[in-house]
Amino acid sequence: METRRPLPRLSFQAGALRAGSRVLPAEVAVALSYNGSTHAVMMATPADLVDFAYGFSLTEGIATPDEIASVDVVETAQGIDLQIWLTEAAAARQAKRRRSMAGPVGCGLCGIDSLEEALRLPRPIAPSDFALTPAQVMQAVADLPAHQPLHDATRAAHCAAFWTAGAIVAAREDVGRHNALDKLIGSLIRTPRGPGALVLTCRTSIDMVQKACVFGAPVLIAVSAPTATAVDAAEAAGLTLIALARPDGFECFTHPHRIASSEAAHVA
Amino acid sequence: METRRPLPRLSFQAGALRAGSRVLPAEVAVALSYNGSTHAVMMATPADLVDFAYGFSLTEGIATPDEIASVDVVETAQGIDLQIWLTEAAAARQAKRRRSMAGPVGCGLCGIDSLEEALRLPRPIAPSDFALTPAQVMQAVADLPAHQPLHDATRAAHCAAFWTAGAIVAAREDVGRHNALDKLIGSLIRTPRGPGALVLTCRTSIDMVQKACVFGAPVLIAVSAPTATAVDAAEAAGLTLIALARPDGFECFTHPHRIASSEAAHVA
Repeated sequence: METRRPLPRLSFQAGALRAGSRVLPAEVAVALSYNGSTHAVMMATPADLVDFAYGFSLTEGIATPDEIASVDVVETAQGIDLQIWLTEAAAARQAKRRRSMAGPVGCGLCGIDSLEEALRLPRPIAPSDFALTPAQVMQAVADLPAHQPLHDATRAAHCAAFWTAGAIVAAREDVGRHNALDKLIGSLIRTPRGPGALVLTCRTSIDMVQKACVFGAPVLIAVSAPTATAVDAAEAAGLTLIALARPDGFECFTHPHRIASSEAAHVA
Repeated sequence: METRRPLPRLSFQAGALRAGSRVLPAEVAVALSYNGSTHAVMMATPADLVDFAYGFSLTEGIATPDEIASVDVVETAQGIDLQIWLTEAAAARQAKRRRSMAGPVGCGLCGIDSLEEALRLPRPIAPSDFALTPAQVMQAVADLPAHQPLHDATRAAHCAAFWTAGAIVAAREDVGRHNALDKLIGSLIRTPRGPGALVLTCRTSIDMVQKACVFGAPVLIAVSAPTATAVDAAEAAGLTLIALARPDGFECFTHPHRIASSEAAHVA
């Protein structure tokens, strides 16, 4: 299924309208179903859908990779049916979860039906020696555009990348920032690469911090700003949250001990 | 409830980390309940919540303004309980809709449990003489920052504004782009202002077009790019979709007949 296509448009510049076209990202309805029952419908870019199935299942607390028996990507006229087949124990747990949910719940936040659950404290980050220098933070951001072919073509896609041992080693794109992160996490849990930093093109709201913590990344680097609530959650979970990251500077909101090297000692 | 607060952070610039603080937007869990039953939980900026109740109810197809008897904003330790009380007929319809939804549905897209519903064709825009000149499109975008106090303080909030008769007459901000648009629409349906253009700081995905069409705005102007699917929906509904709009230019993807004046005649 195509991830982008050219569409006709008029461009107004310097006093005149001119006909032409622009390449825009595709956005299709993707239904995520577990053992035959639809759990959610997301609008997403039709790429890396098996990664999406694994990442969404993990970060939304439905299943770990070893609990997923298989994933079928079924294209229909209306969109994509992402059929996820769980092992017996996980399927029973998911069925029980479904029965405990009364009525139409979970819009806005996936499967959430109460204020308490929305603000659930993220899982604490496991201890590790992972750290990166300020120069490495800025280099990771500078390297992002090389991993954004869809954004390059459309100027309208988010990217989530994984940095470890000096370089970006994986990246996924989507019209939705949550989907991009879920796809990346799905690819990483299928091919583990050790501790590293998530690098995101987008704003950091609390749900992005929650997903990062479920995955277990010790550092999250975002190009845009966080919300206050996301900072609170990162602080509580032990996640190093770096934001407003640019090739020439950044801001660190929580747990700066993972910013290493002599440069970091100059705290004025 | 506060909409922003300062948080400590280290800033790395020109080779040194410096301590300081940055003001960030608040993000709280807002439960929308209808006659006592929770329908959805959204993470939102705690401002203009009565507008949010009216706008969300309209654009998600739950209730028109005359079907809402009252709205109570109840602050709790976990967030905000937005209690919406419907008139008898609307309450009965909503209860029936709840009963017809089997199990946990609707994550990602509010209350959607099938691929068909996700891509529902927007309501066609009603005929009107509304039009604006290229200069007015660019002026509307140039005027946006004056209506973004939260973004001004935090660099991290979306804005949805309404332009009519030569000026922006209403604007709402939120950490979420859907919430900002729902809040604006909620304010506009409570104080109707005639036909006009929606002006958005954000990307235009299909759900933004669907909300604009339910409201009935003939023109949508967005600072960022649309998805291909959003352009398809705007084309089908008769909505004029202008995107990549800047103070010095813009692109029009659908129904350019609402771009008026002699300037528009110069189509190369």
